[in-house]
Amino acid sequence: MAAQGFDVIVIGAGPGGYVCAIRAAQLGLKTCVVEREHLGGICLNWGCIPTKAMLRTSEIFHLMHRAKEFGLKADGIGYDLDAVVKRSRGIAKQLNQGVGHLLKKNKVTVVMGAASVPEPGKVTVVTDKGEETLTAPSIVLATGARARELPGLEADGDRVWTYKHALTPPMMPKTLLVIGSGAIGIEFASFYSALGAETTVVEVMDRILPVEDAEISAFARKSFEKQGLKIMPKASVRKLDRARDGVTAHVETGGETKAIKVDVVISAVGIVGNTEGLGLEKLGVKVEKTHVVTDDHCRTGVKGLYAIGDVAGAPWLAHKASHEGVMVAEIIAGRNDVHPVKVESIAGCTYCQPQVASVGYSEAKAKELGYEVKVGRFPFIGNGKALALGEPEGMVKTVFDAKTGELLGAHMIGAEVTELIQGYVVGRQLETTEADLMATVFPHPTLSEMMHESVLDAWGRAIHY
Amino acid sequence: MAAQGFDVIVIGAGPGGYVCAIRAAQLGLKTCVVEREHLGGICLNWGCIPTKAMLRTSEIFHLMHRAKEFGLKADGIGYDLDAVVKRSRGIAKQLNQGVGHLLKKNKVTVVMGAASVPEPGKVTVVTDKGEETLTAPSIVLATGARARELPGLEADGDRVWTYKHALTPPMMPKTLLVIGSGAIGIEFASFYSALGAETTVVEVMDRILPVEDAEISAFARKSFEKQGLKIMPKASVRKLDRARDGVTAHVETGGETKAIKVDVVISAVGIVGNTEGLGLEKLGVKVEKTHVVTDDHCRTGVKGLYAIGDVAGAPWLAHKASHEGVMVAEIIAGRNDVHPVKVESIAGCTYCQPQVASVGYSEAKAKELGYEVKVGRFPFIGNGKALALGEPEGMVKTVFDAKTGELLGAHMIGAEVTELIQGYVVGRQLETTEADLMATVFPHPTLSEMMHESVLDAWGRAIHY
Repeated sequence: MAAQGFDVIVIGAGPGGYVCAIRAAQLGLKTCVVEREHLGGICLNWGCIPTKAMLRTSEIFHLMHRAKEFGLKADGIGYDLDAVVKRSRGIAKQLNQGVGHLLKKNKVTVVMGAASVPEPGKVTVVTDKGEETLTAPSIVLATGARARELPGLEADGDRVWTYKHALTPPMMPKTLLVIGSGAIGIEFASFYSALGAETTVVEVMDRILPVEDAEISAFARKSFEKQGLKIMPKASVRKLDRARDGVTAHVETGGETKAIKVDVVISAVGIVGNTEGLGLEKLGVKVEKTHVVTDDHCRTGVKGLYAIGDVAGAPWLAHKASHEGVMVAEIIAGRNDVHPVKVESIAGCTYCQPQVASVGYSEAKAKELGYEVKVGRFPFIGNGKALALGEPEGMVKTVFDAKTGELLGAHMIGAEVTELIQGYVVGRQLETTEADLMATVFPHPTLSEMMHESVLDAWGRAIHY
Repeated sequence: MAAQGFDVIVIGAGPGGYVCAIRAAQLGLKTCVVEREHLGGICLNWGCIPTKAMLRTSEIFHLMHRAKEFGLKADGIGYDLDAVVKRSRGIAKQLNQGVGHLLKKNKVTVVMGAASVPEPGKVTVVTDKGEETLTAPSIVLATGARARELPGLEADGDRVWTYKHALTPPMMPKTLLVIGSGAIGIEFASFYSALGAETTVVEVMDRILPVEDAEISAFARKSFEKQGLKIMPKASVRKLDRARDGVTAHVETGGETKAIKVDVVISAVGIVGNTEGLGLEKLGVKVEKTHVVTDDHCRTGVKGLYAIGDVAGAPWLAHKASHEGVMVAEIIAGRNDVHPVKVESIAGCTYCQPQVASVGYSEAKAKELGYEVKVGRFPFIGNGKALALGEPEGMVKTVFDAKTGELLGAHMIGAEVTELIQGYVVGRQLETTEADLMATVFPHPTLSEMMHESVLDAWGRAIHY
């Protein structure tokens, strides 16, 4: 079969890849996307979306147990784990099909198979019908990432799970140990704990959610412990003894090793980029710590070869990937108004209970960078809407440059903060200072009023605190 | 008793009044606030806050009935109306006491009683201990507003209710007629309908929520009708026949009059400013349509006399009042960096199910003002988080100036839009254009991504639509 020629070939149809392909097609480029497994990638099929579906169930389950508090009643509250999983899988499938539809609508050619790049401008795809060769002057690597596996702690799908197993659990654990307290670990800990699993979280760093501001980490820990989760910071799992009736984790902390027997272990110790099998070494593409090295326009240094999203390194977030996808599509189309994605204005969200969201620098990071800072805080307990919702637990923290008033960072924990954070993101995009945020009329009664009060507080002007 | 002297006297301790007083005190002014009924005003005691508490109950009640959809189960789902009301009243009381605490903490003198202004610089208060005279070079009218009463449709607290009765209902109506489809009417219709009342909404205009963009009104109507509410636009209630077992409303629509018998009628036909008994006529203060006329700095034209919030006219929103309160306190304190509150950047929120929120101009209004517009739309059904939440119903609409790219208006209906709208408000405050909103990285997976897609759509660039 003759090689098919395109203007651009995108390898990987996760959020970075399919968005890049659609944008390229919108700009009139003849575009192909190659995907070896699922349209929508991990995010849509095994990540962001199905976890949120499951966490919605645990949220409602939790609210049902609080019925009396709201003047409501219900008996026989329970769950059907298979049905919970079925709903989550169904939503993932619906979106997966949606991506197929969007690609088709935008006239993007989809090739299912494993791609490699034997030379610049050329992609070889092993499909279920054989090998296919595609050519394009521009090739975009968007191959994503996968769960990191630590020696001895490898998942087996039986008693030791990755996120994939945790999303399609063979059974409901009565006792659970989660290794790693990043977003993925904490979300699963939150879900299974809400459904009744006695849950322990082991974190090698000195605090959970270690990328968050230290105050938010501390608040989260207190809140999780109140809910019954057991948190073990500065601890690491040395060994797992797998048996038919459970797993014994040997957890080292403070020089001592403790054996903890649980039904199930979930390993969430980070991710590694999918750089293998692409022929990167032969092409001379630089790979560091499992990620392709790029400049701030996602160029790899090899002519016409770009890398976006997780395979191009942190932050490992779908919205970073999709914005890089748009940027690269516009570069390839020759647009001259393309700006790099500002990594420090990308928000991170964790959908545990309470939710966590942040953008920009933590207080410690800002100080480390030499800023003189002004810090504001506002507690959920002082907000009328939070009380009306029955969600008085949380806080909003803002960090400003004391000299210029620039919003350096915002850090939130509590109900709906994953939806609130975008207001600060818009502010940062527009290079807001404290004065503009103070003049902004946040509507009443909303949780978002706390975003105003936290700014006021940084200047000693909070009204409700 | 000798007259007590202050730097500023604020009449009324609603959100405008108490915020004004606290800000004045923060600026070092000797401040007094006079309140005749409740600290926190209608908003906190009989408006925004207690309604949101009740609507939270109906939201959870609704979710409980949808249990199966989320893989959950519950039997014997029910409510205890007294307990629902008790929770709502408890939260109002907690915040009312909170305002008292904040005023005390900020060293604001509180005088409980009915105030009048016999002459500039002087306030007479009738308290339960007699008459007291207070003086201050600056006086701020923040007396708020109350429900409008139409002749023949007056509330009696038995079968015909205002918002106050609807917040402390003597019984649960099986059938309900709501007169007026503004925010207050629609919120009560939504609450009582969710708890099982067969509900009819009568609106004199040709559509419900008439201040919203026409497309949002139409969407809301369709959604409410799907839930079983009966909507009667272009209709007005001519007469109420009150009997022991119910009320018969004579509703005129299309030239015909129809008798509708219901258990209860809620009247929500707007509000009138509390301008009486203050001595305004003698002072020469101009009152139009029950509201004090002011300039954009809330000056009444009488030396040292300001009016803020509801008594100073539309929009009748607590957040407009509190920002005016801050502005006036800063003017009185002699600050020279005071800017008028931009009324067209004030968002409005309605906490019905689905929620409605908007800021700026509707599409029709923008066209009427002579703008050439670009309009973007994005449906909730295309958003992964909305599907994960089980909230696929809703839309985001954005209106831009086609020439400059200025965001003229944003209009939303669906889950959590009352919390989302602030991102557009921040954008408008910072005079954003489409380019900045397109470059903003809204986090994934969130409902807020629709705010991005709607902007992209206005320029024919939406990804997921």
